[in-house]
Amino acid sequence: MRKVHAFTSISLDGYFTDATGDMGWAHRYDDEWRAFSSGNASGEGELLFGRRTYDMMASFWPTPQAAQMLPEVAAGMNRMRKHVVSRSRDKADWQNTTVLKGDLAGEIQTLKAGTGPDIVILGSGSIVSQLTQARLIDGYQIVVIPVVLGQGRTLFETVRGKVDLKLTKSKSFGNGNVVLWYEIG
Amino acid sequence: MRKVHAFTSISLDGYFTDATGDMGWAHRYDDEWRAFSSGNASGEGELLFGRRTYDMMASFWPTPQAAQMLPEVAAGMNRMRKHVVSRSRDKADWQNTTVLKGDLAGEIQTLKAGTGPDIVILGSGSIVSQLTQARLIDGYQIVVIPVVLGQGRTLFETVRGKVDLKLTKSKSFGNGNVVLWYEIG
Repeated sequence: MRKVHAFTSISLDGYFTDATGDMGWAHRYDDEWRAFSSGNASGEGELLFGRRTYDMMASFWPTPQAAQMLPEVAAGMNRMRKHVVSRSRDKADWQNTTVLKGDLAGEIQTLKAGTGPDIVILGSGSIVSQLTQARLIDGYQIVVIPVVLGQGRTLFETVRGKVDLKLTKSKSFGNGNVVLWYEIG
Repeated sequence: MRKVHAFTSISLDGYFTDATGDMGWAHRYDDEWRAFSSGNASGEGELLFGRRTYDMMASFWPTPQAAQMLPEVAAGMNRMRKHVVSRSRDKADWQNTTVLKGDLAGEIQTLKAGTGPDIVILGSGSIVSQLTQARLIDGYQIVVIPVVLGQGRTLFETVRGKVDLKLTKSKSFGNGNVVLWYEIG
């Protein structure tokens, strides 16, 4: 079975997006954080996105600005196989993208049962929440950004009932971010 | 000026209490965590509580069970000077307690301007939220419990507008808790 990992940033109060939908507060690039992000994008995984995160990423990573700002991450993001969850869309323009149009849990179960590398969800809070509820995520890599937003959408908004996690690792960075690694407990 | 520190546990999705008001999910005592908690309670600070947290603590720490389970913490909690925020209550029975009946921000400004040790808020999510909005908390010690609740009350529910924090320290524990120390950024 292929594994599914979620890599998502949240505020200290648990929001992946603020009340206006903005995620700019999560971007805190310095050399150390850039190196960590580049390492993350250099693997052989496949990527899974919700439609909103996909559109945001698809409008940035193929551009010359991305290649200049974060060359390794951009190359990795463009090269890797990608899946976008969307019932309304038939095709997606960013290279190496497949559209998943069916029932989300069913689509992911099919992907997991197939062959290939592990699957990484980037951002995509709504997808993370739904797949957590369905117990289809094997590992979480949560970046806690040093900010309080007060209002927004919580990463696990559709989860009903307590989900116990097992902390496997944690690491703090000079920009104030703390990365927490969990498995389902 | 005396400083105010908040020491509070939250779920990974930012809740200090679940949808039913339960906080049992936050209790994960093993030897390492007990030693850490005891160290925290051995200082010379004063304690500040909201009414609900106060009532919960006042019904536990003075009992023989508390003295047996966590002797050093219990002795510290009973000995330390305590303040409880309550407009409706005139007196509080737990030893060394003062009732703060006035406007919360005004009461805390008066306390901070007075003499004495630093003030520590334990739990009391509603008080933490209000004093964060009023920018009257100098330091945060947030315990991230390895659990997703899906629903509950967020620690910063009354905060409006982004509050930037500065991470000063982090530490993970064998029970899966991660403690994050922040100052106002």
